[in-house]
Amino acid sequence: MGLTVVGTVAFDAIETPYGKTDKIIGGAGTYVALSASYFNKDINLISVVGEDFPQDYLDLLKKHNIDINGIQIKEGEKTFFWKGKYHKDMNVRDTLATELNSLENFDPVVPSEYQNTDYLMLGNLTPLVQRQVIERMKKRPKLIVMDTMNFWMDIMLDELKETISMVDVISINDEEAQQLSGKNTLVKAAKVIHAMGPKYIIIKKGEHGALLFGEGKVFSAPALPLEYAFDPTGAGDTFAGGFIGYLAKTNDISFENMKNAVIAGSVMASFNVEKFGTERIVELTEKEINERIAKFVELTTFNMRKI
Amino acid sequence: MGLTVVGTVAFDAIETPYGKTDKIIGGAGTYVALSASYFNKDINLISVVGEDFPQDYLDLLKKHNIDINGIQIKEGEKTFFWKGKYHKDMNVRDTLATELNSLENFDPVVPSEYQNTDYLMLGNLTPLVQRQVIERMKKRPKLIVMDTMNFWMDIMLDELKETISMVDVISINDEEAQQLSGKNTLVKAAKVIHAMGPKYIIIKKGEHGALLFGEGKVFSAPALPLEYAFDPTGAGDTFAGGFIGYLAKTNDISFENMKNAVIAGSVMASFNVEKFGTERIVELTEKEINERIAKFVELTTFNMRKI
Repeated sequence: MGLTVVGTVAFDAIETPYGKTDKIIGGAGTYVALSASYFNKDINLISVVGEDFPQDYLDLLKKHNIDINGIQIKEGEKTFFWKGKYHKDMNVRDTLATELNSLENFDPVVPSEYQNTDYLMLGNLTPLVQRQVIERMKKRPKLIVMDTMNFWMDIMLDELKETISMVDVISINDEEAQQLSGKNTLVKAAKVIHAMGPKYIIIKKGEHGALLFGEGKVFSAPALPLEYAFDPTGAGDTFAGGFIGYLAKTNDISFENMKNAVIAGSVMASFNVEKFGTERIVELTEKEINERIAKFVELTTFNMRKI
Repeated sequence: MGLTVVGTVAFDAIETPYGKTDKIIGGAGTYVALSASYFNKDINLISVVGEDFPQDYLDLLKKHNIDINGIQIKEGEKTFFWKGKYHKDMNVRDTLATELNSLENFDPVVPSEYQNTDYLMLGNLTPLVQRQVIERMKKRPKLIVMDTMNFWMDIMLDELKETISMVDVISINDEEAQQLSGKNTLVKAAKVIHAMGPKYIIIKKGEHGALLFGEGKVFSAPALPLEYAFDPTGAGDTFAGGFIGYLAKTNDISFENMKNAVIAGSVMASFNVEKFGTERIVELTEKEINERIAKFVELTTFNMRKI
């Protein structure tokens, strides 16, 4: 089924304890779309870049069957740029530079051929832009998934809550879930966020995996235990891409199938951290992905059913 | 199969954000043996108490098919006492009092009828006492599991390492694994600890579940997501009791069956935190345990096998 993604397409400069990069392709929209492309062959990407954005990077997206007609190229402007440095404890990072550039006055255009897609992924972005994309669809998608972050909770909570009220699934990390809900346990946080609108809540816990709440049920997906994460940039977006890509491919939004989608997201995120930026998720093969799925099966399967 | 447990039998006084208790029965040996008693009907407990230890508490252990001939009752001495207070973030607790009392010069006696048991659980205790129990067995048990804590790493690391070198499975929490190994990721920590002797490493992550490493494989068990933990005291010991109790019952120490045992431990720990001290784990029914196992199945099962 068709999948439309909105999210940033950007330049990132990253430093981790294992190395550093100059400006490379980044942005939530990039990670989501690339990750989803391994599941779904009908992906539309809505974003904005400046005229400095290399054609090679656009070609890379196209090569992954991503339709880029929804990416506006702003003449005379520069592309959104983020520079960050991870600490030795890679759960902590410093933002060294954020240049909004072309993102500053982003007015998302939803091409008419995108307006009837059944699956809509709102990558982390201004809540207003996320909402505008929903409003500019011709029909309400079958499933709307949103990702967001603490930054929007800090500076425009009411705006954010309005967008949250319009989606089916929200994907956030554990600290953000606690901040958004004001609750200190994830079960309580999920209940409060559920009352804000979304039927399903995904809480990402980094190296501890992810929880899916919905329909009074809960599913726990592990993260793949790793010797080290080379670069966690984009892991959450890559997760979201695998999640919605799998749902769009299978066109089944039952809780049971969302469990599979959470594993698909976890599988993709486990690859993402193996190299810098998008390096790993642009080169994957179906065989590699299936082998990784088998690892998640091994990691979680037990056969005891009673004492 | 026979299971011998060594560990403290003690008085605890506990304060959590949800309430407080006077002196109640506690101690690693108590939690391990009670938890294991739901799986195995042939349990021996080696410990020491003072003459102030109530007969009612000893009867409670006996009622759970726990042989208490191995519990020394020291005349003129008092029972080990621990008093602690949990913070609002219940991962943090303050120890308000520790009175070693009868534990101070504990010289463990292993009754002859215990000396041939196939399964031996060394609950958290002085590493020397743990080792003495191994040495006082007539034959080397089929499986020796040990639990320990950071306290022993701080004050007698060499002694601890000697005991670690003699066991098959070690169960510790994530911070302790990092302290013991000097490594910052759990995969690296498990490798270092494996090189110290144990073939299998269990790393407990509290609300994030537990990891089992061994034979080059890894298994991830979730914790049951809870609205709140009423009292986490003894959760790690209860986990260990479910783990070894299940292995002794099934008498199968393959990695595949250890996965089941880790779930058995997680199931028991999920009950333990629901009430103060041992209150919950003394009253469980087989039906309740089987229903909780079903929850863990629901929590972890997905059916995707390829993209």
